[in-house]
Amino acid sequence: MNVHPIFRAENRAADQLRPIRLTPDFVATAEGSVLVEFGHTRVLCNATVEQTVPGWLRNSGKGWVTAEYSMLPRATLTRTPRESERGKIGGRTHEIQRLIGRSLRSVVDLRALGERSIILDCDVLQADGGTRTAAITGAAAALSLALNKLVASGTLPASPMRELVAAVSVGIVEGQVLLDLDYQEDSQAETDSNVVMTASGGLVETQATAERTPYTRDQLTEMLDVASQGIQQLIATQAALLAPSAS
Amino acid sequence: MNVHPIFRAENRAADQLRPIRLTPDFVATAEGSVLVEFGHTRVLCNATVEQTVPGWLRNSGKGWVTAEYSMLPRATLTRTPRESERGKIGGRTHEIQRLIGRSLRSVVDLRALGERSIILDCDVLQADGGTRTAAITGAAAALSLALNKLVASGTLPASPMRELVAAVSVGIVEGQVLLDLDYQEDSQAETDSNVVMTASGGLVETQATAERTPYTRDQLTEMLDVASQGIQQLIATQAALLAPSAS
Amino acid sequence: MNVHPIFRAENRAADQLRPIRLTPDFVATAEGSVLVEFGHTRVLCNATVEQTVPGWLRNSGKGWVTAEYSMLPRATLTRTPRESERGKIGGRTHEIQRLIGRSLRSVVDLRALGERSIILDCDVLQADGGTRTAAITGAAAALSLALNKLVASGTLPASPMRELVAAVSVGIVEGQVLLDLDYQEDSQAETDSNVVMTASGGLVETQATAERTPYTRDQLTEMLDVASQGIQQLIATQAALLAPSAS
Amino acid sequence: MNVHPIFRAENRAADQLRPIRLTPDFVATAEGSVLVEFGHTRVLCNATVEQTVPGWLRNSGKGWVTAEYSMLPRATLTRTPRESERGKIGGRTHEIQRLIGRSLRSVVDLRALGERSIILDCDVLQADGGTRTAAITGAAAALSLALNKLVASGTLPASPMRELVAAVSVGIVEGQVLLDLDYQEDSQAETDSNVVMTASGGLVETQATAERTPYTRDQLTEMLDVASQGIQQLIATQAALLAPSAS
Amino acid sequence: MNVHPIFRAENRAADQLRPIRLTPDFVATAEGSVLVEFGHTRVLCNATVEQTVPGWLRNSGKGWVTAEYSMLPRATLTRTPRESERGKIGGRTHEIQRLIGRSLRSVVDLRALGERSIILDCDVLQADGGTRTAAITGAAAALSLALNKLVASGTLPASPMRELVAAVSVGIVEGQVLLDLDYQEDSQAETDSNVVMTASGGLVETQATAERTPYTRDQLTEMLDVASQGIQQLIATQAALLAPSAS
Amino acid sequence: MNVHPIFRAENRAADQLRPIRLTPDFVATAEGSVLVEFGHTRVLCNATVEQTVPGWLRNSGKGWVTAEYSMLPRATLTRTPRESERGKIGGRTHEIQRLIGRSLRSVVDLRALGERSIILDCDVLQADGGTRTAAITGAAAALSLALNKLVASGTLPASPMRELVAAVSVGIVEGQVLLDLDYQEDSQAETDSNVVMTASGGLVETQATAERTPYTRDQLTEMLDVASQGIQQLIATQAALLAPSAS
Repeated sequence: MNVHPIFRAENRAADQLRPIRLTPDFVATAEGSVLVEFGHTRVLCNATVEQTVPGWLRNSGKGWVTAEYSMLPRATLTRTPRESERGKIGGRTHEIQRLIGRSLRSVVDLRALGERSIILDCDVLQADGGTRTAAITGAAAALSLALNKLVASGTLPASPMRELVAAVSVGIVEGQVLLDLDYQEDSQAETDSNVVMTASGGLVETQATAERTPYTRDQLTEMLDVASQGIQQLIATQAALLAPSAS
Repeated sequence: MNVHPIFRAENRAADQLRPIRLTPDFVATAEGSVLVEFGHTRVLCNATVEQTVPGWLRNSGKGWVTAEYSMLPRATLTRTPRESERGKIGGRTHEIQRLIGRSLRSVVDLRALGERSIILDCDVLQADGGTRTAAITGAAAALSLALNKLVASGTLPASPMRELVAAVSVGIVEGQVLLDLDYQEDSQAETDSNVVMTASGGLVETQATAERTPYTRDQLTEMLDVASQGIQQLIATQAALLAPSAS
Repeated sequence: MNVHPIFRAENRAADQLRPIRLTPDFVATAEGSVLVEFGHTRVLCNATVEQTVPGWLRNSGKGWVTAEYSMLPRATLTRTPRESERGKIGGRTHEIQRLIGRSLRSVVDLRALGERSIILDCDVLQADGGTRTAAITGAAAALSLALNKLVASGTLPASPMRELVAAVSVGIVEGQVLLDLDYQEDSQAETDSNVVMTASGGLVETQATAERTPYTRDQLTEMLDVASQGIQQLIATQAALLAPSAS
Repeated sequence: MNVHPIFRAENRAADQLRPIRLTPDFVATAEGSVLVEFGHTRVLCNATVEQTVPGWLRNSGKGWVTAEYSMLPRATLTRTPRESERGKIGGRTHEIQRLIGRSLRSVVDLRALGERSIILDCDVLQADGGTRTAAITGAAAALSLALNKLVASGTLPASPMRELVAAVSVGIVEGQVLLDLDYQEDSQAETDSNVVMTASGGLVETQATAERTPYTRDQLTEMLDVASQGIQQLIATQAALLAPSAS
Repeated sequence: MNVHPIFRAENRAADQLRPIRLTPDFVATAEGSVLVEFGHTRVLCNATVEQTVPGWLRNSGKGWVTAEYSMLPRATLTRTPRESERGKIGGRTHEIQRLIGRSLRSVVDLRALGERSIILDCDVLQADGGTRTAAITGAAAALSLALNKLVASGTLPASPMRELVAAVSVGIVEGQVLLDLDYQEDSQAETDSNVVMTASGGLVETQATAERTPYTRDQLTEMLDVASQGIQQLIATQAALLAPSAS
Repeated sequence: MNVHPIFRAENRAADQLRPIRLTPDFVATAEGSVLVEFGHTRVLCNATVEQTVPGWLRNSGKGWVTAEYSMLPRATLTRTPRESERGKIGGRTHEIQRLIGRSLRSVVDLRALGERSIILDCDVLQADGGTRTAAITGAAAALSLALNKLVASGTLPASPMRELVAAVSVGIVEGQVLLDLDYQEDSQAETDSNVVMTASGGLVETQATAERTPYTRDQLTEMLDVASQGIQQLIATQAALLAPSAS
């Protein structure tokens, strides 16, 4: 691996995550609730269990997991108008909520879930880069909590979540591969990538976008290496939260 | 006054507020940020200062104060679909955000504010009744914080906020006048009212709605008496937060 | 009571209504139709009986009463764009139609109505202040006409309308309490209030809003006194229209 | 001409108009206001003069005349939901308001009007067939009244309206050509046509639609003959309203 | 007839169609697909058979034929923004798709079709005037192809299409009646008309609109004469395509 | 590389593209027009040059390249309702048009383009998998044609397009890496990826999504190898089209 130390806020190393915090039960109203923090980025992830499925799954015996993502207007330094006021959901929001939904479905046995839906609401309270990867990481934990409740109540014999899944961003800034970019770094990145991986190391999603200049196969390899170790730390944090003694 | 003790959650007296908490700077991104809690009801109130005014105020020398209100989908025990997904703002939301805006403007000297707008975003994280009165109370504090910053930075010579303002609900449940209704009480109330009052005791808004059976002039008088003392406590809490030593 | 004579259009006394007129059967197409005039304010109120109820009332045995409110573009001196052209209903419209619906439901026994809905369409043909209070007053009469037809046709054994209900505005202009404000007075008012009351004197809705400066408890009392006598006159007018000899 | 007597409501002859009435100044708020009645069909036509033109006419020296059309929900025997509630204008409404606008522009010298717009709001209070032809006929009168005011106030040296224009429907019912169809006749018509013609006999719009079976050239000729004489009567009614002694 | 030779692109005679081409099976995905070309105007007409009918036809035993019309953004020399981006369908689009639908239904026995719907999607790839008449002409052919497949598969015993139908534009340019106007001619026309006629000569729709100055009865007669012979040529082209040997 | 022969339609090898065709000037109305075909997938790509830029680029001296993507309703075997009818753009459409825009901007010197925008409209006429990669490939060619015209007309001294760019899909079906999936293969794929690459081999976008089961690093490597050689063939096809002798 080829990560040189460069100056990052709070003396972070190039391959170092920001301080990660997962707070369970942030609201008492949801079936699963986790406030996830990646540094200053804070996303509230709430899981809802509904006893219906989308039309195309009716009578299929299979369930569904989906997500909605939104930013509070003042999650950002400059106020972002509400999508409810503008009367439509923007492209970026659509892209992110589809990504969260796909990531979570990759680790859930939808047949074992049965004909019910789980909706993960991911609302960004404060944004400092990496809101979509924080949302995936927090939503996976909230989903696990909600599924555990279905097991505890006897609704399901075992959790249909096969393993944990988490996500992190990696980017190239001034030629350097950096892990878990904050907003400042993200806006300077030449390449921006998001990686979603499972506890057992399987890749769920690899997205690497050249923002200014194309990147090479070697750079892609380095980004994936750095992302992998970051994700393993995130999954360890999730696991600690979900361990019996932590609840 | 004629308030008999009846059974309320956590042994609250009929004329007693729920535990009130105002947390300043809940997010670091907004010009003024207050998390307000009335018992289990939690509303994040963020103030944004913008250097523009709505069209009808251009070149008037006057500013504007307005509010937007929203509930996160899982603020409630049953998930409420997002208004951004439905593509339109509902009547209840419109009604509440207009009430918050009017209440705040009643204590601000819009000419002294100058041609700038302050937007108060009130997002309900958890709802247990009284979200609109909590929002007014928290938003008034967030507005004060934002105006104080404009004074501190030398943009304004003095805060254009003439006095504090707060709000509380009062209702009639089984013939009893109760202060600061939680969700359970609110859904049983025969009459539901919201009162907005200033520190000096001036009435800004009185709304009393018969949900099932009409109410009498005497009952209205009693509701206003109970609300008045509750609001004075709320304003004391705001004042404590805003006192120099608290910041 | 403390109402001093001040100059009003057409030498109206401070506590005097404008000329009130209720014209039944303004259109022949509706189950109940009343054109209501408060001075130059003219609102067409049409009642529709539908044999369905909103989803949440299905199989409850209970009916529903609701209202829609709209202004024709040239009801006002300056043309107001249609909400159908803008593609959404504004906050003021939502607020008014919710108020009309609540007011009417307060005097109807929804269980006796059975599983049917009555929709009151209130369309303002000409606006000179007080359109929402005129709408409530006219809609109550149109609702009564429609319910009487259900009795006449044998669909219902008796009208489920327990008593009449009407509404009027009261405001404080230059410190004076004035009844039934026209547009000119309304735009100068320091406080603007709307009161909805039943024939037996029960309060259904009290809304008093400080437009510029807060008002006192004494002023609220005076406004309610003036409103009460105005509403009794309105209800007398409704009763005359609905009396057997008038139909 | 080949019009056999057939039974029509109120013993109308096949080539006879329903009772026509034009009431000027139905509202006092608009620059020109006419309530037009074709039998039970009643349309309120209000003209608004605005000092702007659509973008594509800016700096062209030319004005614009346009129309908006709407039906009150209970203009019809069965309630029609509001387009504002559904959030979009339907195809039929678009088609009608485009027809009204084109018809009026055909008799106005847009260059002589100067860079201002006249909007004709046509709101159907009660519908019994022929609402679009009544709207054109009433709107032409309201437009004339509004333009006369611009002349009276010295804004324009002379009215830019070259001549009057009116419209009527003609249809084929059971093989018979009938003038000015009411709703009952319209719903039985094999062919439905609308003709717009000027005072000097020029055709502005001919629309003839086979609803069930195609029609012949001879039938089209007969429909146009019957329409012509009906329109001349409508224009005589407009002229009487607009004559100096009538105002 | 009174058609003088005037200069038209490619030396076209006043009563001459542009080169007409109908290409069947332009896409393989639709039940019936025809690319229709009137000179440079190219419209892709695809027929879809659905096994449902609109609500008002359920259990009526009757089917429905409807159309949707759209222009690709660069069908025109200046790009036209998509209606999907603007979030609503414009008035012109509504008018055209209603016209196409009516024209096709006039030649289909809806009872013989049974409870199924046929949707004709008419998408303009390149526009040079006459897109709506080309669309009707191409859609009638696509509809016939789709119905023939229902017969071939044994779903229907015989095609419910009674006869062919086609459409053409006629206009008056500098006092001359011209057939099948291209964009350049259309934008200069004093009168613009569209005629829809069946194979047996029955009129389905006659629309003649004065764009600048009213037209006379004689001019209308001449336009209909010229249109008739044009439509007979169009129907011959359709018939050739649909003849057994052509498929 | 580890690609075993498996059965594909038309005996395609696992690493073989479908027949590729680029037809220039498919419409005459656009500044650049290319019909791209990847087997049965056909996308019409039209480039529009506009002399404005989005607000955030005004006075920056820089231009913009963006894309819109849409499918005709019958591009698919089952009709897809139009987004214009539903009144909003779906998430998938947003995602695709953002991807096309980013891909094209990566090879354009926006400063050399100057303050003008190029919009690429990508309309799918027939869909059989890979519509987004076909769209990128065709749009790059249409963009190049449009830029060449700006050079030919003297508006720009040289084309601001630094190099060609193309895209292809790769997927894993039954454990095999397949290039350029058709619809049938795409719906069976365990992993679906899209790769965008420039003529010089730089990566612009790598998106690899596990549809059912996570994929390994080795599989990702193999997919990128297969995609690379496919893209080089696509770029050769673009280059042939754009070579002077081809125009």
